[in-house]
Amino acid sequence: MAACAFALKLLPLVVTGRFCSSRASYPARSAVRAFSRTVTRSQLHRVEGTGALTGKVDRFGGVTVNLADIGLPADISESSFSRLLQDSLARWKTEGKVAVWLQVPISLSRCVAAASTHGFTFHHAKHDHAVLALWLGEGESRLPGSATHQIGVAGAVVDESNGKVLVVQDRNKTKNAWKFPGGLSDPGENIGATAVREVFEETGVHAEFRSLLSIRQQHNHPGAFGMSDMYMICRLGPLTYDINFCTRECLRCEWLDLAELAKTDDTTPITSRVARLLLHGLEHGFNKIDLSMEELPAVYSGRFYQLYHRQLPPTLKS
Amino acid sequence: MAACAFALKLLPLVVTGRFCSSRASYPARSAVRAFSRTVTRSQLHRVEGTGALTGKVDRFGGVTVNLADIGLPADISESSFSRLLQDSLARWKTEGKVAVWLQVPISLSRCVAAASTHGFTFHHAKHDHAVLALWLGEGESRLPGSATHQIGVAGAVVDESNGKVLVVQDRNKTKNAWKFPGGLSDPGENIGATAVREVFEETGVHAEFRSLLSIRQQHNHPGAFGMSDMYMICRLGPLTYDINFCTRECLRCEWLDLAELAKTDDTTPITSRVARLLLHGLEHGFNKIDLSMEELPAVYSGRFYQLYHRQLPPTLKS
Repeated sequence: MAACAFALKLLPLVVTGRFCSSRASYPARSAVRAFSRTVTRSQLHRVEGTGALTGKVDRFGGVTVNLADIGLPADISESSFSRLLQDSLARWKTEGKVAVWLQVPISLSRCVAAASTHGFTFHHAKHDHAVLALWLGEGESRLPGSATHQIGVAGAVVDESNGKVLVVQDRNKTKNAWKFPGGLSDPGENIGATAVREVFEETGVHAEFRSLLSIRQQHNHPGAFGMSDMYMICRLGPLTYDINFCTRECLRCEWLDLAELAKTDDTTPITSRVARLLLHGLEHGFNKIDLSMEELPAVYSGRFYQLYHRQLPPTLKS
Repeated sequence: MAACAFALKLLPLVVTGRFCSSRASYPARSAVRAFSRTVTRSQLHRVEGTGALTGKVDRFGGVTVNLADIGLPADISESSFSRLLQDSLARWKTEGKVAVWLQVPISLSRCVAAASTHGFTFHHAKHDHAVLALWLGEGESRLPGSATHQIGVAGAVVDESNGKVLVVQDRNKTKNAWKFPGGLSDPGENIGATAVREVFEETGVHAEFRSLLSIRQQHNHPGAFGMSDMYMICRLGPLTYDINFCTRECLRCEWLDLAELAKTDDTTPITSRVARLLLHGLEHGFNKIDLSMEELPAVYSGRFYQLYHRQLPPTLKS
């Protein structure tokens, strides 16, 4: 019955749609969404007696099983888990599920090996658990991807009173080039907060976020496991001026003339370019170069996001 | 001897440096870098006979063991691997290694469970392997983080001849709001390429990248496993105009007056904001709102990166 309903839902897509080359994630399967529903706790209990794995069904027709929550014996063997999984997969396919997600605590990692024999692959992993996924739907997998980028942030603290900018020489690089202090964002950290934190940690100077200036995107970042890297350079305004730099990371730290930084060879190409951008801003107004930030409420989640773009005249913004 | 040399290298940091609150990644340990060296293949072979795990030593004093490469039996038990690992850890600690990385093929995931009993946690995982890490150095872990963000890209194709922009209504959302076509970047894909690809896949229109307009950063993105999201909105120029939209993803697709998009309620706040930005650009010149892109060679890797910022007057750029 369920398989029939599912097939009927797919019919309009077969007869009317042009062939879509889109590799959009599986939330784009409207037919599946119409079919699926969230399994209630009482329903979960009812199914458990069958000896198959149970999980939550999402609105896209996928099922998520959290191995930490379903009462598996801690010493379950790979072969026992494999049999459980095989039976469950057969059932889910009959029910027309399009995807299966397995959340596996690190201590149960032998179940990962068993799952891989059934076609599961890693979606992602962090700290103490891994998430595996298997596409059961038609055609090319439309599973959403996982995180691909790390975010690096640099903070250029500009003292407008004297045209100087705060720079450091990294202790650990072969060539001691002047750069803006910076580092990787912590998980969940906004880029402005990263800039302010890294500037303080490396130089001892307190500063506040003013604008975003430049973004660099690079792939297969060396030393980052082939990850991609988005490097965001921000303009900050100083709140204090005394330098107390971290000698573990920095060889030197100074307030340097922007004009000098823009001309010197003892810097990186990006730092040089941004120095010239800042010089232009210093001379003609930073509004010529800034991307200003505004925090706005997200429509559905109730959380906030940070939006960056060129500042519009006030009358046009709202 | 090795431990002594290592301790001596640390001494200058102890007597001169101020306390650094920096959580910078472990490449900042200059003392360790001086100590470590890359293990050659012949040295790898020589150590193998001891029955301990062998790996490559990096310039920061970490050791990486790839379990796929060291001739472990495919059916090695968790307890046997645990003993091997324990012996190896004891040796590495004596040698002053600061970090251990384990690359584990998915089929050997039982070794992951064993490693976790020794303090290893997941660093990341994708497809068919996982990487685990353990900090052995002093104080707070300075292991580099893993990818934290997915990148979403939207493409606003503006027809300057008539002030219209290409928009879609998403089939799968509850509220059918006008939006710019877009989607997630594929691994290794530049944002301009994502914009062009997604526009074509969703609408059938060929377009080319012109500029970056706006960035939105959001954390704990709903439906993205608590990942963070960087959403980059680009301006594109049309190369073709006929619409042939993907009915699986889109309910409607039209060239809409920018002025109408900027005023309507049937859109998202961000789309509305960008529409106003584009309108301003249409009236006063896109150079007022654009972040232009330049591809530049990376200094050390020989690869290229893409740099975005406000365009400088030509004389200032180089």
